[in-house]
Amino acid sequence: MTHTIQLDENVVRDAVGALAATLGDDNVITSPGELLDYRDPYDYKGSDEHTGAAVVTPGSVEEVQEIVRIANAFRVPLWTFGQGRNYAYGGPAPRVRGSIQVSFRKMNRVLEVDDELAYAVVEPGVRFYDLYDHLQAGGYRLWPSIPDLGWGSVVGNTLDSGRGYTRYGDHPLTQCGMEVVLANGELLRTGMGGISTSKVWHLFRESYGPNHAGLFFQSNFGIVTKMGVWLMRAPEVYVSGFATWRDEERVAGVVDALRELMFEGIITNQPLLGFGSPTESGRDARKGGWMVRFALYGREPVVEAQYAAVRDALERAGDVTVGRRVYRGDEERSRATMHDDKVQGGVPGLELLEMFKKLNGEDAGHLDLSALGPLTGADVLKSIRLRRELYARYGLTYSAGIVLLPRSALNISAVVFDTRDEQATRAAYAAYNEMAAELARAGYPVYRTNIQSMDVVADLFDFGDHAQRRLNERLKDVLDPNGILSPGKQGIWPRHMR
Amino acid sequence: MTHTIQLDENVVRDAVGALAATLGDDNVITSPGELLDYRDPYDYKGSDEHTGAAVVTPGSVEEVQEIVRIANAFRVPLWTFGQGRNYAYGGPAPRVRGSIQVSFRKMNRVLEVDDELAYAVVEPGVRFYDLYDHLQAGGYRLWPSIPDLGWGSVVGNTLDSGRGYTRYGDHPLTQCGMEVVLANGELLRTGMGGISTSKVWHLFRESYGPNHAGLFFQSNFGIVTKMGVWLMRAPEVYVSGFATWRDEERVAGVVDALRELMFEGIITNQPLLGFGSPTESGRDARKGGWMVRFALYGREPVVEAQYAAVRDALERAGDVTVGRRVYRGDEERSRATMHDDKVQGGVPGLELLEMFKKLNGEDAGHLDLSALGPLTGADVLKSIRLRRELYARYGLTYSAGIVLLPRSALNISAVVFDTRDEQATRAAYAAYNEMAAELARAGYPVYRTNIQSMDVVADLFDFGDHAQRRLNERLKDVLDPNGILSPGKQGIWPRHMR
Repeated sequence: MTHTIQLDENVVRDAVGALAATLGDDNVITSPGELLDYRDPYDYKGSDEHTGAAVVTPGSVEEVQEIVRIANAFRVPLWTFGQGRNYAYGGPAPRVRGSIQVSFRKMNRVLEVDDELAYAVVEPGVRFYDLYDHLQAGGYRLWPSIPDLGWGSVVGNTLDSGRGYTRYGDHPLTQCGMEVVLANGELLRTGMGGISTSKVWHLFRESYGPNHAGLFFQSNFGIVTKMGVWLMRAPEVYVSGFATWRDEERVAGVVDALRELMFEGIITNQPLLGFGSPTESGRDARKGGWMVRFALYGREPVVEAQYAAVRDALERAGDVTVGRRVYRGDEERSRATMHDDKVQGGVPGLELLEMFKKLNGEDAGHLDLSALGPLTGADVLKSIRLRRELYARYGLTYSAGIVLLPRSALNISAVVFDTRDEQATRAAYAAYNEMAAELARAGYPVYRTNIQSMDVVADLFDFGDHAQRRLNERLKDVLDPNGILSPGKQGIWPRHMR
Repeated sequence: MTHTIQLDENVVRDAVGALAATLGDDNVITSPGELLDYRDPYDYKGSDEHTGAAVVTPGSVEEVQEIVRIANAFRVPLWTFGQGRNYAYGGPAPRVRGSIQVSFRKMNRVLEVDDELAYAVVEPGVRFYDLYDHLQAGGYRLWPSIPDLGWGSVVGNTLDSGRGYTRYGDHPLTQCGMEVVLANGELLRTGMGGISTSKVWHLFRESYGPNHAGLFFQSNFGIVTKMGVWLMRAPEVYVSGFATWRDEERVAGVVDALRELMFEGIITNQPLLGFGSPTESGRDARKGGWMVRFALYGREPVVEAQYAAVRDALERAGDVTVGRRVYRGDEERSRATMHDDKVQGGVPGLELLEMFKKLNGEDAGHLDLSALGPLTGADVLKSIRLRRELYARYGLTYSAGIVLLPRSALNISAVVFDTRDEQATRAAYAAYNEMAAELARAGYPVYRTNIQSMDVVADLFDFGDHAQRRLNERLKDVLDPNGILSPGKQGIWPRHMR
């Protein structure tokens, strides 16, 4: 079931007034023209279904606490975002029309970088670009891990369980130590930050007692205002490697070989398997055959031995061409221009956005169907063929893009539509929902989704008569009894909206 | 403040009767003689402060649900343990005298092993010995990661945020996909197990929506009845490496060198730094100087290049002797006899227990003071000297043992006492508590503790006027309103016992 919630616009207007009185008019956007920029960028043109009543931009943790206090007093819903650049998942747009959007674009400071211990502490508005620039300007021997597009928030992407492509590409695992404003306005520090004098808040991931960090991923249980992020030591040599082949059957052997290389600790990043030829701006799925990219990092003799091992293993998978581009030192790597080399080297860019527009037009939108399967060659091939069949059923073009994680394959494919066409956009939403359900039935769960589909995907988590949902609802009711934090996020609704 | 709770013994007795009627008399221990075996093994002889009223041994998930149902009906507290072998932390003993202990020793099946994807699914009574034996007998190409003593429960150790010494030594990170009986009897599957048909419950760690797994670490919010555990692919070559030196000042250079080797991905296990000479049964802290052990795993040419890099880096730290023992293939490694080689090779043993008894006598007990600090040479040296000073203040002998984690140093030292002497035992508890507080003030948080000190350590988590405790209490009240699950664990008490 998908919820439609009607808010009382007068109450929301009063709350916005109170917020403007507290934060100042400069930090509250209410003009309809400006609010257009804060809708789902890929919803159909003219859609008003996910428009907020206002955007407020706090400049400090104390202001976030004030916002929460006011939202509780008026019982109006907030919807927080870091940069709002998570385009295929809804951007800055709230699940509930008329919510008050909280933008972190002004809380964008890199608060701390520790070069020796390789971590940073960032505010939720810090973009991957900002973090990269800060590290480069400071001469740190540190790399960030970057998702495909560099304009998003580090905290936002991490909390959405986003992925990058360096050795630190499992972004949830790079999180170490958060500060969180709870719905009652209290400030929490997770893990070892629970001791005021702690030296290891951002150095050790576990807690004394239950580990609370997971509660704030893809959730509406709190507002993260600071996060420790582990960074990668800049390597002596960085090898951006790749393999190409034509015969789809060979996908199985390549995947099995890569899994074993990952188990061995030879390949330590998150390789990407796809169809298409590499270009400066990305892969061109219209041309060429299959390819996989991977990276090696370290000192020359070790990386040489590792590359030989990868080449041998991939060539044994048969009829595969293996190649590499080598970057020595940080200076060389910072001048990389090809998309594959940039993302595996922690250099932010927007190549894939440009390529998407070039291929599909300025008004094209997309949803990303992101589901997990086992990391075996046979299963990856099976999941590719299932998707191709599903896409064909809905008259869509399938293009394979699969991130290889330690034991799972994250199969991400776009559902592309013309945002000028409301019917086509709605048809794409419907097709996405049906495909997500088909994938779940086949054993492949979607792990992240657009605001359009949050309820639908939550419904698929059926085990124990939806035990996860019931647990989330109990947690929601105790942690946020007024339901002010991002109602509907990931299908979690406060009591009065259920 | 430390709580003392008085239970109504008549009500507990009635509950035990109901449990015996449900589980059968064979699965309920009530004789005082037998219950002696389920006390804190290191509490003073004759102590009755942490004796349970009964031990019940469920054989299935359904029986665990029955136990929870009965505990709710009578409002009596349970205290669960896997094997009860977590000796320095209280063993099987309940925090509250007269609780009903739930032993998982009969739920000890390895439910599944996937050789290709390198994981197992285990019940909470499976010991490290059992898992190792199962993998050896089945001819799997898989290693478990083992803590110092092999007799403990894999699930119990992992949920207590235990550590091992292979590449998979961060045990909380090896967890992937739990089944949990909640206090209301409901069955939850975490993460991707939320979809009944899921193929990736034990393959992908994140959730759709909040990640619940952390809630069940060091906690009393649920009873874990199944767990997916990631295993390490058996390497072609395993190098058990070490370095020794005499001058304490050199600790700093060695730690800094190792940290960088870990950042580079050359050393991928969790090295151990300590004082003493290696012997077949462990390290003898009475003899010799400083040493560090580390391991390398992989194919020969890669490991050779890595070993050369480690040797060079450590020798540059000055006056350090570097050595190694090489194991080719699983057969060779399974015949390892030295403790260092066994634990870094995933082979369970009890050498350290035997060594402890030899050094301190059959009646000696110990607490482990386990606190985290930053992984810098200067800080590790500082924390060693602080501990030496603290130990001297209380007339105790300090022996250094420090696990090197990715960015933190886990400094573990024993507080040894004679369990035949109540006063000496109580003095050790008091010294431990004062040292834990001193360490916290200096920035080094204890992350895990004995039942004797759970309240004291919880009190040290002061940030935000004890925001972590308040959050835990809100979670406890909503998830377990009758307070039946392990009251007092990690200082978390249900409402009626606060």
